[in-house]
Amino acid sequence: MDLLVKDGHVYEDGNVVRADVGVRDGRIAEVAEAGDIGDADRVVDASGSLVLPGMVNAHTHASMTLLRGYADDLPLQTWLEDHIWRVEAHLTPEDIRVGAELAVVEMIKSGTTAFADMYFEMDKVADVVDEAGLRARLGYGIITVGKDDEEARDELREGVEFARDYDGTADGRVRTMVTPHAPYTCDDETLRESAEEARDMDVPLHIHLSETAQEVDDCVENEGVRPPEYLDSLGVFDGDEEDSGTEAYVAHGVHLNTDDIELLASKDVGVAHCPSANMKLASGVAPVTALLDAGVTVGIGTDGPASNNTLDMFKEARHAALVAKTRENDASVVSAREALDAATRGGAELLGLDAGVIEEGRPADLVVVDLDAPHLTPKHDLVSHAVYAANGADVKTTVVDGEVLMDDGVVETMDEERVVAEAEETARELVERAEADEVIDG
Amino acid sequence: MDLLVKDGHVYEDGNVVRADVGVRDGRIAEVAEAGDIGDADRVVDASGSLVLPGMVNAHTHASMTLLRGYADDLPLQTWLEDHIWRVEAHLTPEDIRVGAELAVVEMIKSGTTAFADMYFEMDKVADVVDEAGLRARLGYGIITVGKDDEEARDELREGVEFARDYDGTADGRVRTMVTPHAPYTCDDETLRESAEEARDMDVPLHIHLSETAQEVDDCVENEGVRPPEYLDSLGVFDGDEEDSGTEAYVAHGVHLNTDDIELLASKDVGVAHCPSANMKLASGVAPVTALLDAGVTVGIGTDGPASNNTLDMFKEARHAALVAKTRENDASVVSAREALDAATRGGAELLGLDAGVIEEGRPADLVVVDLDAPHLTPKHDLVSHAVYAANGADVKTTVVDGEVLMDDGVVETMDEERVVAEAEETARELVERAEADEVIDG
Repeated sequence: MDLLVKDGHVYEDGNVVRADVGVRDGRIAEVAEAGDIGDADRVVDASGSLVLPGMVNAHTHASMTLLRGYADDLPLQTWLEDHIWRVEAHLTPEDIRVGAELAVVEMIKSGTTAFADMYFEMDKVADVVDEAGLRARLGYGIITVGKDDEEARDELREGVEFARDYDGTADGRVRTMVTPHAPYTCDDETLRESAEEARDMDVPLHIHLSETAQEVDDCVENEGVRPPEYLDSLGVFDGDEEDSGTEAYVAHGVHLNTDDIELLASKDVGVAHCPSANMKLASGVAPVTALLDAGVTVGIGTDGPASNNTLDMFKEARHAALVAKTRENDASVVSAREALDAATRGGAELLGLDAGVIEEGRPADLVVVDLDAPHLTPKHDLVSHAVYAANGADVKTTVVDGEVLMDDGVVETMDEERVVAEAEETARELVERAEADEVIDG
Repeated sequence: MDLLVKDGHVYEDGNVVRADVGVRDGRIAEVAEAGDIGDADRVVDASGSLVLPGMVNAHTHASMTLLRGYADDLPLQTWLEDHIWRVEAHLTPEDIRVGAELAVVEMIKSGTTAFADMYFEMDKVADVVDEAGLRARLGYGIITVGKDDEEARDELREGVEFARDYDGTADGRVRTMVTPHAPYTCDDETLRESAEEARDMDVPLHIHLSETAQEVDDCVENEGVRPPEYLDSLGVFDGDEEDSGTEAYVAHGVHLNTDDIELLASKDVGVAHCPSANMKLASGVAPVTALLDAGVTVGIGTDGPASNNTLDMFKEARHAALVAKTRENDASVVSAREALDAATRGGAELLGLDAGVIEEGRPADLVVVDLDAPHLTPKHDLVSHAVYAANGADVKTTVVDGEVLMDDGVVETMDEERVVAEAEETARELVERAEADEVIDG
């Protein structure tokens, strides 16, 4: 074996079993009774610890780490228009790179092994993913609102070219997608063509959908139908016929009625549920129970770290379980197991990855959670602990593609200290530039 | 000075300032410009870190750590009656002691400096608080339902005697209260007398109130009025006339209408808001914004670790901010500052302590949060970080009454390893006893 994760409590097929996990050529070669796998080039001691599939962050904007805590406690439109967009206008490619580096270090440290990212300057993000050793599904956020026809075509071209050029890079760890930002920020021609291009390249299409009540109202007023029906009328939800795992999926899906949910289910369109961001921006709570009941694949995302404000998927799984119970007035919905599965295999399915499960033949993307802590004692139910009691900070080892990215809390692929220091300085300078510009404008 | 917390970013009066905090005789002697306080018997280096008043957990049942993760994803009544109460029937005084030890270690590690506890065998809990060095307001949970008159009198007597005998012990760090469990678990005579006894002893009365819709419905049916009015008719909310800071306060307050809120405000009755437990048990979301608007003091509690499932007050402050925004459909309500204040000074006010604020003359109950982490970078707004991005795990130093209980993550007053191991074994044996008994009963 290349790697042996030895003698952990392994979450396998919904249960926790004491086992060794052997890894060869980046894949899980064997899940065996503890003690059964003898030798390996590298051994990670997981005795007494919990071994989980790595968390899959199904929706984020990684480089927005630079704006973490910059503007809080504001309604979505004020937050976006008066604060975030004004600073984002000053982002350089180098800023994007630095912000992505901070994000990947945070993700590795908190047990995320794959993430879906939609932002700008995605070649920089792809390079950072390569360097970090993570897995990702990346897309350029196509926005055509306020642009003329030629600019809109350029925007679509940028998204398509990135998806074409970078898919399968970083030894296959970087996959791409076509990501028109939202129904209300892209014209219908761009939405239609984005879907065609995604089908042609056999990559997913990913888009924000029905995040706020206002968005739904505006769509009904402007298009005569609700957002899901509008996108469907443009062919956005038409995946290829072979069920290749690269169907379209949407982020948020907060304001979905029964018809919307049926439409998503019938078109095999999954939802990346972002509970913290939806709560923090007062957008609402997605109908996750109804989505699961309808057979829609649900993953979990942090959304950008400016609206969360972390990339901690353990925190997010906890929120997913708690807000669903509150929404449905039923403590039994979205159990710890369902939340954990959504945060791992659910996200992997949305991203069209065969990771997210600890099973022979799957990619070796897994994390080791240190259970030797007061808040994880006693050990009545380790799945409960993973969702209700653990934080990302309890992760001690992160493995992607069979490579150890962090062990004993030490990130091996990145220089954490350098990344943190550079991000601190870059963020300060970014905000200074943006605020100086405001003064001049004002 | 006895202690110098040197060169931190100090949360003082709603702002963060770079300062030294000097401590003498257990109290904050000076908050001075960084570098101004020269000498001290012990120095805690807080440079680059955030210095906050310690978290005050305004409502918990500490020894329920032993049942963390034992029964999740169940409605409140099933959870209580079929699981929790059955195991609790087997709790020994020694179990309570061990569970409390686990709780105090978890609290010290996650930055809680004071807590309010309502449970059984409270002399054991008081001893553990003494040993740990924490501050607490403790009460014996009086329950008379299903008991005859004499048993009910014994129950009240136990509560009153504990409150009388233990108030001011542990060098004044242990204070007590009279804690009838709830309107629906105590007869009206016991409720009335509990309030009289609390006034006589000048300690707070603390009680669960309006946690579920069912509780409100039952009260209206049985008593003809809603729970707050029922308690008020029994004199439960009549504090002493001198506003001594030992008024009654309630836990939960989820189902409160406008009249209820006005009543609480007029009687100066505060609310310990427990967002995680209320969400996890699908009880609902307390109207915190309306309470704050009405001038009601709001603190934050974790509730027992079997319904949370941690004692992490940072997590709880985050939830308080997020659920309020969702409930009110307004991202601006319960800002990071308001959530932090509720989790510190709000709780301290409920407990009748003059802690909860970093200010000269206040008890030196404070914590140092390590900011040198990817998820706390960049440092645009440290209060935002405290609430939206930090976990209890980011706390490196905990100080109570001027004594360092933890530094650099190492608990100095308790043997963490011994406590965790003992709790693990005690919890396993407890559940085995309870489940063996079930089999015999069945």
